[in-house]
Amino acid sequence: MGIGNIFKAFQPKDKVFFVLFEKVASTLVEMSKEFHDGMLEFDLNDDRLLKRMSDYEHQMDDLTHEIFIQLGENFITPFDREDINMLASGLDDIADYMYASAKYIYLYKTPPTKEFSEFSLLIYKCCIEIQSALKNLKGFHNPAEVKESCIKINSYENIADDVLSQGLVRLFESDDPINIIKIKDVLEYLEVVTDKAEDVANTIESIIIKYA
Amino acid sequence: MGIGNIFKAFQPKDKVFFVLFEKVASTLVEMSKEFHDGMLEFDLNDDRLLKRMSDYEHQMDDLTHEIFIQLGENFITPFDREDINMLASGLDDIADYMYASAKYIYLYKTPPTKEFSEFSLLIYKCCIEIQSALKNLKGFHNPAEVKESCIKINSYENIADDVLSQGLVRLFESDDPINIIKIKDVLEYLEVVTDKAEDVANTIESIIIKYA
Amino acid sequence: MGIGNIFKAFQPKDKVFFVLFEKVASTLVEMSKEFHDGMLEFDLNDDRLLKRMSDYEHQMDDLTHEIFIQLGENFITPFDREDINMLASGLDDIADYMYASAKYIYLYKTPPTKEFSEFSLLIYKCCIEIQSALKNLKGFHNPAEVKESCIKINSYENIADDVLSQGLVRLFESDDPINIIKIKDVLEYLEVVTDKAEDVANTIESIIIKYA
Repeated sequence: MGIGNIFKAFQPKDKVFFVLFEKVASTLVEMSKEFHDGMLEFDLNDDRLLKRMSDYEHQMDDLTHEIFIQLGENFITPFDREDINMLASGLDDIADYMYASAKYIYLYKTPPTKEFSEFSLLIYKCCIEIQSALKNLKGFHNPAEVKESCIKINSYENIADDVLSQGLVRLFESDDPINIIKIKDVLEYLEVVTDKAEDVANTIESIIIKYA
Repeated sequence: MGIGNIFKAFQPKDKVFFVLFEKVASTLVEMSKEFHDGMLEFDLNDDRLLKRMSDYEHQMDDLTHEIFIQLGENFITPFDREDINMLASGLDDIADYMYASAKYIYLYKTPPTKEFSEFSLLIYKCCIEIQSALKNLKGFHNPAEVKESCIKINSYENIADDVLSQGLVRLFESDDPINIIKIKDVLEYLEVVTDKAEDVANTIESIIIKYA
Repeated sequence: MGIGNIFKAFQPKDKVFFVLFEKVASTLVEMSKEFHDGMLEFDLNDDRLLKRMSDYEHQMDDLTHEIFIQLGENFITPFDREDINMLASGLDDIADYMYASAKYIYLYKTPPTKEFSEFSLLIYKCCIEIQSALKNLKGFHNPAEVKESCIKINSYENIADDVLSQGLVRLFESDDPINIIKIKDVLEYLEVVTDKAEDVANTIESIIIKYA
């Protein structure tokens, strides 16, 4: 028996956290979907994508702030306060780095390489699994499904590592150092998004280990 | 009622932490003031600034270490041990990255750009707000003032993000890749200082949410 | 009296964590020894070193995962759950960045500079001290020896900072920007390994402060 069972009785009182985390998850899914669509049909002269990413990033800031406020007002939480804090921060980081990736793509005016959309697809897939994991976390009834989502996110992050490596190898075949610096920067921002998704998966997994 | 009120009774016993945090804050204010003055009238041939930054960085290490020792010896703390730990580490990080910024400016022998002093001003302003926030944190009597300082730090960090973006755009207008690599490195170190200040603001805000 | 003494009675029940941490430590010592030997006699055409580093990195992942599983199953732990979590993650980070360093050395096909083996020696020395510290942490009988190891790790990290600075100064004497980008990347990965070792030393020190 895990140590969390004694807390299960309190759950009905603290639905607010799951409601907020579900809003966060659906925002990330939408944001990453639009980001991926934008990478597939990219137009440097049309900066509506950047504007949309900025809007989503602000929405995520507001939701994250709301979670911290609830954390201050509620004595009872569905799982450790530290875990809620870490989960909320980790989810916000995903949005921050997705926005930063978009910002630097526009800032550097770099024509996207094929790695950009490979990354954006992996990011979108990570967000879908995060949404699924957070849904199944509610009530701790489906620990196996939660774990499966976390394993998938870990595998996407591994693939993203390879996309970065191979992208860098390809990039260094050129002999334009300034272009290398710019594209390398964007590829690294994109890879950090999947690192942040992996951090969230690890946090979720440590919660499920404790309470399921 | 926040969950922290039950701890308030213990406060007189654990003044030591506030005394130490106030020393840390005043050290950071002095350090950032000298750093900003140095950026305004920079002379690459005069490395006294670097020596002073190194001294401050060591002072901060000593103060941080003292906080950790007190944490080991005191059963009673004014707020969660984890929060004291995170706050102390975060404040030390500000000094570490300010010193690193100075070090790389001298190491690369790069003539400072206007962004250097824009950053150093923002860093100085962040440190003043950190000092104010830590002062008002004592006794948890002025949560509104603490929050206001944290909001200001967040806004300075947002400005720093823009200073970095615009600095990079300007930098890439040149066609000297080696100079780009050097200046980009320094600009990124400077931006991390404000990130660390924002982390501290977030930690302080989470403390005030719990206890105020 | 530290606050940890009340937990000491539980120690016999939770030997499993020390057994696992000792396995982790000996894996890191072996990994860093092979890495250092590889840097001393480096052959870009022989990628067995990379394969070995990848194997060690997977072993470390498995051990880290096992620690998290034990953390979920054991109500009683030899020290704070948060500290076990942070210690396990920190040790895994050392392996991750050592592997990443090796990966980028092969990926970029950069002939190692003398800094590579200076770093690998420091990394190896850090891992030996981590092994010693974790051994002496058991039972909390030798806090002085634990602290001494942590101080040594901190001093190695300081030396690594200088190796990086001096390596970058040397690197920028060349006028090949693409080579600078590649070597700088590897030097920074190598330096992060020692940062991660320092993080582990800080975690161990905070544990010893609490419980010794």
